[in-house]
Amino acid sequence: MNRRTIMTSLTAAALLASLPESAGAHQAAGDEALVSAWLENCVSSWAAGDADRMFAMATDDVEWVNIVGMHWKGKAEVLAVHRLYLNTMFKGVPLTLKSIESIRSVGPDVVIAVARWSVGQFNPPDGSTVPASDDRMTLVFRRTANGLSLAHGANVQINQAALDAQQAAGPPPSA
Amino acid sequence: MNRRTIMTSLTAAALLASLPESAGAHQAAGDEALVSAWLENCVSSWAAGDADRMFAMATDDVEWVNIVGMHWKGKAEVLAVHRLYLNTMFKGVPLTLKSIESIRSVGPDVVIAVARWSVGQFNPPDGSTVPASDDRMTLVFRRTANGLSLAHGANVQINQAALDAQQAAGPPPSA
Repeated sequence: MNRRTIMTSLTAAALLASLPESAGAHQAAGDEALVSAWLENCVSSWAAGDADRMFAMATDDVEWVNIVGMHWKGKAEVLAVHRLYLNTMFKGVPLTLKSIESIRSVGPDVVIAVARWSVGQFNPPDGSTVPASDDRMTLVFRRTANGLSLAHGANVQINQAALDAQQAAGPPPSA
Repeated sequence: MNRRTIMTSLTAAALLASLPESAGAHQAAGDEALVSAWLENCVSSWAAGDADRMFAMATDDVEWVNIVGMHWKGKAEVLAVHRLYLNTMFKGVPLTLKSIESIRSVGPDVVIAVARWSVGQFNPPDGSTVPASDDRMTLVFRRTANGLSLAHGANVQINQAALDAQQAAGPPPSA
């Protein structure tokens, strides 16, 4: 168990302790553990350049929209591009899970999570250089007996200048 | 019924005609009509600057991640920023639905759609100019008796240069 796993477990335990004893509270803590497990596997798969491990828990019709708007449909296509990219432009690039910002159930079968990642600088095939940045990743999972299976991913690169400008402007009028 | 609505209905009818008679085929055609209806309302709400109409069919815990990675949580917050932006930086900016690229069910309660939009040039609060571009929008809906209710949106701006480079490189090896 590495430091991040321990911290995640502590967070889940703290969440459980702070919520009333109910099926909902137990499910929330369970979902956090399930999402954390999926993301931890994502981190280690990235480091190992192992796309098959990364998408071992994914539905056959999984789709992925990446930060430049490429859209891959179905497990075979998602696997093929990740096998390539994890071993070329992302090889050796640092990836850090910064936080799980949101976990929600939609009906009994589906869990939506939003995760924030830091990604180091990399060079895509077009020859450009993408500076180190943070991403906000939406993940839609289907519950299975063996954990969460990814049905959809959509990843957005955070434009920090735009977020800073929004923060400086203050919250919008709520009326 | 405007031209787009007619075209969408024709598309749904063509889809239904081309699929075998089955509950699944009827549901697929029905889902396309439901997603089209939600997106049509989005278009007219954008033009009218009416955020409340845009999110009339959304869950109370709806979340939205926009193209620069801002993340809004809950209907009140999503409404507040859209009330502001639809009447400032997006006021008078053309928005066109180019296609619904994907519609899938995840369990009985949830529908995921990916839509492609064209958005005209606009000026965000940071003073920059965002050129006209296309976006790929992931939408996660919950089925209700009254249609689809939005639970989550994640919008990615398409980097056409990156997509052109990918296309020029050809498909990745599927090994």
